[in-house]
Amino acid sequence: MERVNRLRVREYGIIIGEYCIGPKNSISDVKGVKVGHYTLIRGEGKLVPGHGPVRTGVTVIFPNDNIYRNKVIAAYHVINGFGKPIGLLQVGELGLLESPIGLTNTLNIGIVADALIEYTIRSNSDIDVYTFNPVVLECNDSYLNDIQGRHVRHNHVFKAIENLSNEVVEGSVGAGTGMVSFGFKGGIGTSSRKLSGKLGGYTVGVLVLTNFGYMKDLRINGVPVGLELRKFFRKDIEKNDGSVIVIVATDAPLNSRQLRRLAKRACNGISRVGGISSHGSGEFVLAFSTRNTVSYNDIVLFDETILNDAYLSPLFRAVIEATEEAVLNSLFKSETMKGRDNHIVYGIPIDKVLEILDSHGLVR
Amino acid sequence: MERVNRLRVREYGIIIGEYCIGPKNSISDVKGVKVGHYTLIRGEGKLVPGHGPVRTGVTVIFPNDNIYRNKVIAAYHVINGFGKPIGLLQVGELGLLESPIGLTNTLNIGIVADALIEYTIRSNSDIDVYTFNPVVLECNDSYLNDIQGRHVRHNHVFKAIENLSNEVVEGSVGAGTGMVSFGFKGGIGTSSRKLSGKLGGYTVGVLVLTNFGYMKDLRINGVPVGLELRKFFRKDIEKNDGSVIVIVATDAPLNSRQLRRLAKRACNGISRVGGISSHGSGEFVLAFSTRNTVSYNDIVLFDETILNDAYLSPLFRAVIEATEEAVLNSLFKSETMKGRDNHIVYGIPIDKVLEILDSHGLVR
Amino acid sequence: MERVNRLRVREYGIIIGEYCIGPKNSISDVKGVKVGHYTLIRGEGKLVPGHGPVRTGVTVIFPNDNIYRNKVIAAYHVINGFGKPIGLLQVGELGLLESPIGLTNTLNIGIVADALIEYTIRSNSDIDVYTFNPVVLECNDSYLNDIQGRHVRHNHVFKAIENLSNEVVEGSVGAGTGMVSFGFKGGIGTSSRKLSGKLGGYTVGVLVLTNFGYMKDLRINGVPVGLELRKFFRKDIEKNDGSVIVIVATDAPLNSRQLRRLAKRACNGISRVGGISSHGSGEFVLAFSTRNTVSYNDIVLFDETILNDAYLSPLFRAVIEATEEAVLNSLFKSETMKGRDNHIVYGIPIDKVLEILDSHGLVR
Amino acid sequence: MERVNRLRVREYGIIIGEYCIGPKNSISDVKGVKVGHYTLIRGEGKLVPGHGPVRTGVTVIFPNDNIYRNKVIAAYHVINGFGKPIGLLQVGELGLLESPIGLTNTLNIGIVADALIEYTIRSNSDIDVYTFNPVVLECNDSYLNDIQGRHVRHNHVFKAIENLSNEVVEGSVGAGTGMVSFGFKGGIGTSSRKLSGKLGGYTVGVLVLTNFGYMKDLRINGVPVGLELRKFFRKDIEKNDGSVIVIVATDAPLNSRQLRRLAKRACNGISRVGGISSHGSGEFVLAFSTRNTVSYNDIVLFDETILNDAYLSPLFRAVIEATEEAVLNSLFKSETMKGRDNHIVYGIPIDKVLEILDSHGLVR
Repeated sequence: MERVNRLRVREYGIIIGEYCIGPKNSISDVKGVKVGHYTLIRGEGKLVPGHGPVRTGVTVIFPNDNIYRNKVIAAYHVINGFGKPIGLLQVGELGLLESPIGLTNTLNIGIVADALIEYTIRSNSDIDVYTFNPVVLECNDSYLNDIQGRHVRHNHVFKAIENLSNEVVEGSVGAGTGMVSFGFKGGIGTSSRKLSGKLGGYTVGVLVLTNFGYMKDLRINGVPVGLELRKFFRKDIEKNDGSVIVIVATDAPLNSRQLRRLAKRACNGISRVGGISSHGSGEFVLAFSTRNTVSYNDIVLFDETILNDAYLSPLFRAVIEATEEAVLNSLFKSETMKGRDNHIVYGIPIDKVLEILDSHGLVR
Repeated sequence: MERVNRLRVREYGIIIGEYCIGPKNSISDVKGVKVGHYTLIRGEGKLVPGHGPVRTGVTVIFPNDNIYRNKVIAAYHVINGFGKPIGLLQVGELGLLESPIGLTNTLNIGIVADALIEYTIRSNSDIDVYTFNPVVLECNDSYLNDIQGRHVRHNHVFKAIENLSNEVVEGSVGAGTGMVSFGFKGGIGTSSRKLSGKLGGYTVGVLVLTNFGYMKDLRINGVPVGLELRKFFRKDIEKNDGSVIVIVATDAPLNSRQLRRLAKRACNGISRVGGISSHGSGEFVLAFSTRNTVSYNDIVLFDETILNDAYLSPLFRAVIEATEEAVLNSLFKSETMKGRDNHIVYGIPIDKVLEILDSHGLVR
Repeated sequence: MERVNRLRVREYGIIIGEYCIGPKNSISDVKGVKVGHYTLIRGEGKLVPGHGPVRTGVTVIFPNDNIYRNKVIAAYHVINGFGKPIGLLQVGELGLLESPIGLTNTLNIGIVADALIEYTIRSNSDIDVYTFNPVVLECNDSYLNDIQGRHVRHNHVFKAIENLSNEVVEGSVGAGTGMVSFGFKGGIGTSSRKLSGKLGGYTVGVLVLTNFGYMKDLRINGVPVGLELRKFFRKDIEKNDGSVIVIVATDAPLNSRQLRRLAKRACNGISRVGGISSHGSGEFVLAFSTRNTVSYNDIVLFDETILNDAYLSPLFRAVIEATEEAVLNSLFKSETMKGRDNHIVYGIPIDKVLEILDSHGLVR
Repeated sequence: MERVNRLRVREYGIIIGEYCIGPKNSISDVKGVKVGHYTLIRGEGKLVPGHGPVRTGVTVIFPNDNIYRNKVIAAYHVINGFGKPIGLLQVGELGLLESPIGLTNTLNIGIVADALIEYTIRSNSDIDVYTFNPVVLECNDSYLNDIQGRHVRHNHVFKAIENLSNEVVEGSVGAGTGMVSFGFKGGIGTSSRKLSGKLGGYTVGVLVLTNFGYMKDLRINGVPVGLELRKFFRKDIEKNDGSVIVIVATDAPLNSRQLRRLAKRACNGISRVGGISSHGSGEFVLAFSTRNTVSYNDIVLFDETILNDAYLSPLFRAVIEATEEAVLNSLFKSETMKGRDNHIVYGIPIDKVLEILDSHGLVR
């Protein structure tokens, strides 16, 4: 029933939005951005808290090679604050990100934060790292994973960092390993948009960790795919109340106020695929620009080039389109997974989806 | 080419979302809520600033018959803060609305605020109104209207109040008179949802003032209607950068923190019809509950019944659906209008829209 | 009993803080900033709502000569949101101030906003002002003034603008005419700080409209002056719950995020003189920088020089000191006033205050 | 030179503010609130990162005996967001605190968060804790402590919990072990206020972790004690940029919006002792009410009693006074400490302070 090779939505001719994608259609199209995963899949059958089965992992996003030294301008937005992010308030106050971004499961945030602290101390041993603001975001993978076990350990974070690459692997990998979205298997997805030269030529990349949405609400390019799929799938997984994390990267010359405006548009993208930001869905957005890095202890005055706000709308649209497509990629790239207590979450049935889309004459 | 009678979307068999509507499918389904308009249409031809042509008006929403005495719990949310609302910060601090809500054009906010002050003093002459927080929201109707003329005067506000009714007139009336949305004539729209008894039986009503959106982005129930309509209409109106105001009313027992959560979901509804919250689009949401009114100078302790947040998601969905439908109603009910400098904004061509929808097999 | 000439605190040898003042010890030490007042004092005796007695006015602050064309970077902070400011939300979203700042009484905000709209249209008749964000802040002068009368009319605002000067008049003038602070006559006060060259050489100017505070809480340089003064004055004026508006100007090269950080420090200054930000005290801060003006419709990219946040603390201290001193100046410069219903509010008794200070050996 | 027994400020006759204190003058005067510390002091001499010397610890505050089951209404406020708190955003969204509050050093936040997760899972083994929002706040003790070592481990947190008591130990204990405030040894302080029956009879308790302030700015009851003390102490410690955490507890019936208003008043208290909220000083406030506990998965509707906002000012004043006194207690109760690299931070010289206060005739 399942495809051997699950492709990204665009490879099936499903085109989201009007803007061009970047070369990799990935957050790594923003130069310097790299992503690394470490995936933990261990054990089967009945849940024994602390002992598995394990379906979880960690994902790290690096805006550049040494973010502690070359801090980037950043901002965050809370769509729905039922979640446990670490580090966002300082990002808001200073407009700076100085940490790799860690993604993991809800109960593993403490360990991953500590691992990022350790990593930052070690990789900057020539300077005295006496303060550091680790950034970790999370979704809840407890439907498939022994979440109480906090199975992501320090060395898994370090291995994820070793795995850093500008080739971003999607689907049930890293932090996405145990996630559920729209009743199907969710996880990591990414997408990008490259503005035309006339609009500034900037790149916007988005990476999502999807664990949100009710099957009945899923829309692809507006087609109510979820309503039709629901006839074939049982309902109970939909109880899982979810969460979604959206990371927005750009090379546009923006300050933190403007990045916050970009971050807010992730909500529009999430809504287009059918998200309702339900009570229990922790939805957080972190946006950064790789332009204008800051080594903030060095100099008194910066010279910054900043885009006029009047030219932001294309960047807003790019965020919306890339968020929408990244969510769909996370679904398309995630295979069926069986987890704790033999809970099964199916990969979205691509053939069936394509059939539905064709029947509405909307794509390809 | 235009229909003599423009009906609401639902009357054409277009069903938005899954929940039931209230008896009037209107914000006035929330008991006690009334809406009044005053419309100004005067003059034709070339703009003479201060002298017309005039295509504007004012709309007032009353949560109850004397909101100054019976303040309601309220909250606001800023989707995109390029706008000139009055009164929201105090609503946020105190969680209370003590003013009728006035809607008008951008440059008329001062006069409408002053008129609401005068009205409140007059209608409470037995008590000393020495402080009062008027609430006014706006969109920019300058494409059709001599906006510099600030043609809405005090007596127009009072007349709108005289026109208060629980039968809400939609389309190019009141504050909606000169608005443009998705390249078509926008204005006032409303819709409601009534939750089942199992979900609490609460009513959510939404009223929108629409002046936002690019034609190409318009979606109805997911169908990219705007993309197809665009073939028939010229582009220039799309420059108009818009704004949208969303008023959310409910009888659910919510505190201001919870109402803010509801208010945030208007963004999801706006996104579903294709809004991208562009740079220049002032998008503000004001939500109130008619339960638990407060005469705050009287008593020391209130006994309030408050809904557990875990039961909010159906109310979120109701806000989303009602916002989406209210926007569509504002379009369907607005006729073609010619304004200043002979600018013409067409009413959305309903027959054409229905044809497009039928061709996608999505409605009716 | 009262001094013929009321001087500013510093002229009595009362030195607040450690930093140097600017040449005028005024907000106008920030180059380009001007302030104008129009004062309305009419009638005596019993209040006849709408007919007086009148003890009110309007104050305008211009960051430069044409703020609509040369917008300045700005930010706001809400210490306590029980107040009716106009225009702050857009300032927050765009980080720009495009309006003269109007100060007036609570119920006059609508008229003053409309007057600023009219002024801006008129003074920019060569460009099409179809959108504009007027900024008005207020305190409540109803203890002395017929506030329901909204006696500040359009022409008074225009006259205040004619009165613009870099010589800032303090005390019971303009918007300060009818204000009460710490049980004494409050009103307009200003002060400035000039950082040493080593700290950047920047100037910070503060202007306050004071209408807050309980007599018992008043401290001058830490000395509990209010507690001692209270023995001589009756209590009832203290019921007046107040408000205070703080305008912070600087020539330091700051973005809006940083200006918001400065704005937050006004709370520290207010606290030092004894403010407790009581429930009914609307306390709002608006901060702007005259550096980096923006004519935002013109160009795509700005080159900005921005101060590193690590060097902000001296500016914070400057805001705190200047706020504290500006509040004291507003008290020292305000003479006794009799208003509606023969309410009398005494000017702070300077000789007595000096005597108390001397007895503590803290000043001069 | 140092006193054998350091007492609390009030025991020296220094009375802060006008309100009565609670029986213990402690956050534990709010019924049910308990505090536990674990202190780590190990090694001497030169810093060997990861190996000491260790001058740090952890403090836990329990609003009640099982906060996960009996969540309390809560809110937070950011005075200055240069800090690394965990858990505040969810507190803001839901208005609920479901975690013991952990205090520790900046780089130990991850481990302490993980320990609170483990503790919560273990102590609720009969229910499935699959989601949990740990709350941890921090200050930076790197002047005295080998902060990179993250010497606070899981078992130290558990021991702090074992040490829970309503007798709150102050000074250089727990998280306060290595802190510096106003150039002197800082740490943990607490104080409370009990409103008269006429004002509702409510109790407000405050606990602070102090690591902020410049010596020259220290004021006690307004007296510029710091300026005079500075003559006797060298300056370099003042470089330490600080931070302060304020925990506000009350039994008043408040919702989260109101608690946020209380939280904001901590800034007034901090300012009174001379705080300027400098750039690097992370200043965060967390406020909770023990009234109206919420077991939020159980019931659909709550009946809550809520205080009218018009009666909040006495609670504001209580927060301000208790914050001011708690800060002073943290100084008075902290003895001289020698830490890493033989850095010495002196306990504030109480006899000298009393002498200065006496010379101003302000206390006792």
